[in-house]
Amino acid sequence: MGPMAGRVTIGDLAQRLGLSKASVSYALNGQPGVSEQTRARVLALARELQWYPSSSARTLSGARTGIVGLVLSRDPDLLGTEPYYMLVLSGIEAELIDAEYGLLLRMVGSEPGRDLPVYERWAGERRVDGVMLFDQRRDDPRIPLLRDLGLPAVLNGAAEPGSVLPTVVPDEHGDARQVVELLHGLGHRWIGHLSGPSGLLHEERRELLLRAAAAPAGIEVESIRGDYTMGTAERLIGERLRRGPGPTAWVASNDVMALGAVRAAARAGVDVPGRLSVVSWDDSLLCEIGAPPITALDRHPRDFGRRCARALLAEIAGTPDDGAGARPSELRVRSSTGPAAP
Amino acid sequence: MGPMAGRVTIGDLAQRLGLSKASVSYALNGQPGVSEQTRARVLALARELQWYPSSSARTLSGARTGIVGLVLSRDPDLLGTEPYYMLVLSGIEAELIDAEYGLLLRMVGSEPGRDLPVYERWAGERRVDGVMLFDQRRDDPRIPLLRDLGLPAVLNGAAEPGSVLPTVVPDEHGDARQVVELLHGLGHRWIGHLSGPSGLLHEERRELLLRAAAAPAGIEVESIRGDYTMGTAERLIGERLRRGPGPTAWVASNDVMALGAVRAAARAGVDVPGRLSVVSWDDSLLCEIGAPPITALDRHPRDFGRRCARALLAEIAGTPDDGAGARPSELRVRSSTGPAAP
Repeated sequence: MGPMAGRVTIGDLAQRLGLSKASVSYALNGQPGVSEQTRARVLALARELQWYPSSSARTLSGARTGIVGLVLSRDPDLLGTEPYYMLVLSGIEAELIDAEYGLLLRMVGSEPGRDLPVYERWAGERRVDGVMLFDQRRDDPRIPLLRDLGLPAVLNGAAEPGSVLPTVVPDEHGDARQVVELLHGLGHRWIGHLSGPSGLLHEERRELLLRAAAAPAGIEVESIRGDYTMGTAERLIGERLRRGPGPTAWVASNDVMALGAVRAAARAGVDVPGRLSVVSWDDSLLCEIGAPPITALDRHPRDFGRRCARALLAEIAGTPDDGAGARPSELRVRSSTGPAAP
Repeated sequence: MGPMAGRVTIGDLAQRLGLSKASVSYALNGQPGVSEQTRARVLALARELQWYPSSSARTLSGARTGIVGLVLSRDPDLLGTEPYYMLVLSGIEAELIDAEYGLLLRMVGSEPGRDLPVYERWAGERRVDGVMLFDQRRDDPRIPLLRDLGLPAVLNGAAEPGSVLPTVVPDEHGDARQVVELLHGLGHRWIGHLSGPSGLLHEERRELLLRAAAAPAGIEVESIRGDYTMGTAERLIGERLRRGPGPTAWVASNDVMALGAVRAAARAGVDVPGRLSVVSWDDSLLCEIGAPPITALDRHPRDFGRRCARALLAEIAGTPDDGAGARPSELRVRSSTGPAAP
């Protein structure tokens, strides 16, 4: 028996086996109401014909796994030190609790491409109902792969124009504008951007948006690539401070790097904020308790996590996402920013 | 056909179907080498006879899910603010990367008992190869349940004497001794213990161990129960400071509560460490950058996470755990501790 033309449905299985659609559905979903013999016949045919539940069929039949997947291509050490991801994760979990969903988390290290076999396996073994994607890269190979696998997916944090997947993006345009307005108002005309690793779409986007906001205000932007860790940030900013005249304010792409910048200044005897201002693109308890406390963008990471999870659950259910927009970020002005040094 | 006497083996299935054990194994594990018809026959019989792979059989046959489960009965907000769990999680993930395992994370909120149906479902649907247990309670209902379900499990963080499950416990005896020695040497004779929520075995154990270490040194211990959050800690210590003479040093059960204690002191105009010393049972970046930086026990949470994951993987594989002991904690003495106020 070869595969049938088009998608195999529960109706097709029922017809071939001379059973009701309900019986086939019970059998496929592990529900009571059919004998073990019948269940075995249904499962055997379903496997033979490569029947695969569509996301809407899964919703209707209740055959979902109740699990969404997240593959992180990151050094696991970062997971323990960078609060942002943990706050997003806690928002995701808060939404998943309500939906009684579990999160299958798989870390694969930061070497590119090691995540792809995981999606293939999850789809093949029907381990998850859908996946959340973060840290999008240009020409991201996950997108065509997930389309081919037919696995529901939502892109979070950045999206290439014309992306085929549903996306949840923060308002980074507004974020860049707020940061530049603050620094411009304090008289800064030369600012530095300590970004995250290259290749990440949201980092490229921030860089563009910062420059776009700064240019009309006559502000020069200089960039250094960090790796989200405090140690590297401290070394890079330390080197830059020793190289002579430079930015009077640094915008770091996360809180941990902002702390590194403050440490580098302290080590070089450069007063913060007297001689150098520091802004963090992420807010957290680390910024709040820093010495000095660090001016930071509160981008509501828990809300963002909730939105990401909600969008994926809607995609899995085949219902429209509620489409609630992002709450605008709030710039928490603390003691790490002050008037530009003359 | 009724269930067979004793455990159904791959050999039983092979005999009944007139197939080789290898073919049955290929069919069960989704490996190539058998026709779809044969695979369907094997699966049907396996289901009918309720064949279930034993943990050692799963290892040998490669039929594992490649997933371990973790149910957290916690407010997801805590996940985002308390670094300890995230550091443990990053250690777990570091070990799982090497083993190419995924972690299925399910949060169920802090109401007791809501985790039990999750284990039942995971075992019934064979979603995970084993589970990690944290936050053990007295007469913990998870232990008999997991034994009945036959799901490999490892207890982490505390164990009742005579526990039937393998356990990974930190050296909290040594931890308590180190903290008491430091404070005794500084002349403190009345210390406070700001513990975590009641009912948690490791919190009860810490309380006992602190008192056991303090008594021979002539130190009095007074206890307050916190909930691991900064806000509650700040309120409780603030109230205690207002009530008149009290401990000259507080030991907080996590870093976030230690920060809360320092805040309460600042708000009450009580100098740290001049009038009050504060020690955190957990170390993290928060303690390092606090103002003042907080003396804390570095309990090597990443190593602990790695040990927990390694013990579970060994249990799943049916091999002995390497049994590597805990690295002794290191007390990082910073500026939040000083001589007892006269």
